[in-house]
Amino acid sequence: MGLGTVGQGVLRILRDHGEALEHRSGVRFEIVRIFDRSFREKGDVIRDIPASDNMEDVLGDPSIDIVAELLGGIEPAYTVVTRALAAGKDVVTANKALLARHGNELFELSHQHSCEIAFEAAVAAALPVIKNLRRGLIANEIEALYGILNGTCNFIITRMQEDGLDYAAALREAQVRGFAEADPSFDVGGKDAAQKLAIISALAFDTRINEDAVLTEGIEHIRLVDHQIAADLKCVIRLLAVARRDPLQMRVHPVLIHEDHVLAHVRDERNAVFFATSNSGPQLLMGLGAGARPTAAAVVSDLVFLARENPETPEYWISGTKDPVIHHEYAYRFYLRFQTYDRPGVMADLARILAEENISIASVSQKEGPEPVNVVVITHTTPEVPLRTAIKRIDALDTILAPTVAMPMELDL
Amino acid sequence: MGLGTVGQGVLRILRDHGEALEHRSGVRFEIVRIFDRSFREKGDVIRDIPASDNMEDVLGDPSIDIVAELLGGIEPAYTVVTRALAAGKDVVTANKALLARHGNELFELSHQHSCEIAFEAAVAAALPVIKNLRRGLIANEIEALYGILNGTCNFIITRMQEDGLDYAAALREAQVRGFAEADPSFDVGGKDAAQKLAIISALAFDTRINEDAVLTEGIEHIRLVDHQIAADLKCVIRLLAVARRDPLQMRVHPVLIHEDHVLAHVRDERNAVFFATSNSGPQLLMGLGAGARPTAAAVVSDLVFLARENPETPEYWISGTKDPVIHHEYAYRFYLRFQTYDRPGVMADLARILAEENISIASVSQKEGPEPVNVVVITHTTPEVPLRTAIKRIDALDTILAPTVAMPMELDL
Repeated sequence: MGLGTVGQGVLRILRDHGEALEHRSGVRFEIVRIFDRSFREKGDVIRDIPASDNMEDVLGDPSIDIVAELLGGIEPAYTVVTRALAAGKDVVTANKALLARHGNELFELSHQHSCEIAFEAAVAAALPVIKNLRRGLIANEIEALYGILNGTCNFIITRMQEDGLDYAAALREAQVRGFAEADPSFDVGGKDAAQKLAIISALAFDTRINEDAVLTEGIEHIRLVDHQIAADLKCVIRLLAVARRDPLQMRVHPVLIHEDHVLAHVRDERNAVFFATSNSGPQLLMGLGAGARPTAAAVVSDLVFLARENPETPEYWISGTKDPVIHHEYAYRFYLRFQTYDRPGVMADLARILAEENISIASVSQKEGPEPVNVVVITHTTPEVPLRTAIKRIDALDTILAPTVAMPMELDL
Repeated sequence: MGLGTVGQGVLRILRDHGEALEHRSGVRFEIVRIFDRSFREKGDVIRDIPASDNMEDVLGDPSIDIVAELLGGIEPAYTVVTRALAAGKDVVTANKALLARHGNELFELSHQHSCEIAFEAAVAAALPVIKNLRRGLIANEIEALYGILNGTCNFIITRMQEDGLDYAAALREAQVRGFAEADPSFDVGGKDAAQKLAIISALAFDTRINEDAVLTEGIEHIRLVDHQIAADLKCVIRLLAVARRDPLQMRVHPVLIHEDHVLAHVRDERNAVFFATSNSGPQLLMGLGAGARPTAAAVVSDLVFLARENPETPEYWISGTKDPVIHHEYAYRFYLRFQTYDRPGVMADLARILAEENISIASVSQKEGPEPVNVVVITHTTPEVPLRTAIKRIDALDTILAPTVAMPMELDL
């Protein structure tokens, strides 16, 4: 249902590789019917498959076992999925927004009707994150996971880091190359990564999906100078989605990662998820997190997954009852950059406020140069609440010229 | 069957996490019976589970659905697996050697008896390589795969690269830390990686398993100076298992990888597999390739996988009929290190022989220092056959003091 670029990709794979799929998995797929609002304009693609713009033609057809919801957005996707489940059909969806908003309800519904919802394509497209949690890592407690889950942000950050572009130029290049929308705020503000993190965490930690419990910060305020200073510290900047089991916490924010860590080498539009597990040790998955072809391939992999399942005992993919909430009690080493005048007393003010909030300084540096100057402080491990208080007090000083940039240093990864 | 460290790990996971497994997957496992030659000495571990040293007690028990073969080696593992399949039981095995030697026959047998053999634990333990090929990437042609498949070699290479240890010292450290056997030749000679590559390739390229078709070279001849020169070239050395679809080729050998590539940051005992795919783009899996706990977790993940399968339509995991053969027609840029005297005419001899074999030189360097000196040549892309001829001729010169070290530069990764 939905014959956009992803739907057409699924069609192409099932047509061109149907025999190979059957040879490999023992499953033969038949595309019974296509629903698309503008199916009349897509005759070249649809060819001889029955098509319609009336969703009842699909939902009411008892010969259909699996519905692939590739409409995107909330409606009519929500109606399609609920109706399909109520009709006893399994569902494959690539719809992250739908799961972030209505996932808990939809998974409960799937359970009531003994159906399954597969959604590999909804989270980091080509990375088998969901299947890995359902199968590969199932004999583990997931202790923490660290994701690079937004290709737009990672592309922008990598171009700044490697090519010395400023933020605006890197964003323009991402837009030219199709990695960023005309309005990029959903991506660069961290919201896209937060929705993905909320869904993955629900599987990893057996909770309900709650995107509002993800403390979210984007990359718009990161400047080229931050990348340069990070490089001096043998680090790179990444927008990292972090979730930990105990205490349960979810956050998306730019962090400094040591350049030796494998996540520091996830470049450009690639996505990655790094799991810390109880039995299998550390594990990384890396690949393309978006794009019509990788997404279509993930949809087809879910079709195979569902078709190979034992129909007698459907799986309840997200079944947690614990509702995650925002958690503020973090402790990190922090990178702080203050933009200020090169004037006597400024450093004394910064040091005094940090001391009053009981924040211990590991190093301070200020490079000579034209005003405004950047003062960079690396803290010892410090809880975040007093740190945020200190930043608020410092940003209120007359001598501070822009909001302070604060990034955790994820050095224990 | 087999209650060594892996078997005990499986027992522990099923006991301690049985409820969590059931909650996540809907599957409840019952350990019906344990076979172990020395079960009488393992009462503390076995507790109240029926155990025996007679394999008939397991193989003849019709209430057993799945047999986990954790014996290792060829016999009695081969007998156990064939008898289990003949009795209609699915099999989980962690036995790489058995699959490398008898895999084709065992998979045919599984097909005849409508059973499945799952073997995630036999290849790179904690990495979900097999499940990813059976499910995550099933809608792709695999064009090539690049694996770091031997943790012993990767540990030794990383310690040489990062700590400046020579080969003998790095090997000793690997032995002390339990990453290398007293006789390390199976690992450092590349044979272990070659067996894994033969199994993975059979799935990826739909061929029979043939470990003899893997052109195999180990790491014993790599010296500290090679790492130092690689670093000057902004590369690192890795023992890479490479397989390509067209033309089908499999090889295990040390190569130079650019330091920016993510595989260059797979360090110490970690394993990784990098796939080049037709629809999903590049994909990397990284994790622990050995160890009792990761292997046990992989066995349990396979138990879940099989238990969730539709029993009506078992999968034929390795079903290719094409038999891979060794393929010699490669072309790479090559790193060549000649050990020789600092004497007039040596360089002229090298250059003349390379020219006669039509091998074009991209760069030459020789560092001043005590004899013997190392002359390093980087070639332009050159086919391997004339290159091997040139090396044979050069190594026959009186002025050449040790076999020439030749490594492909995998720069197109």
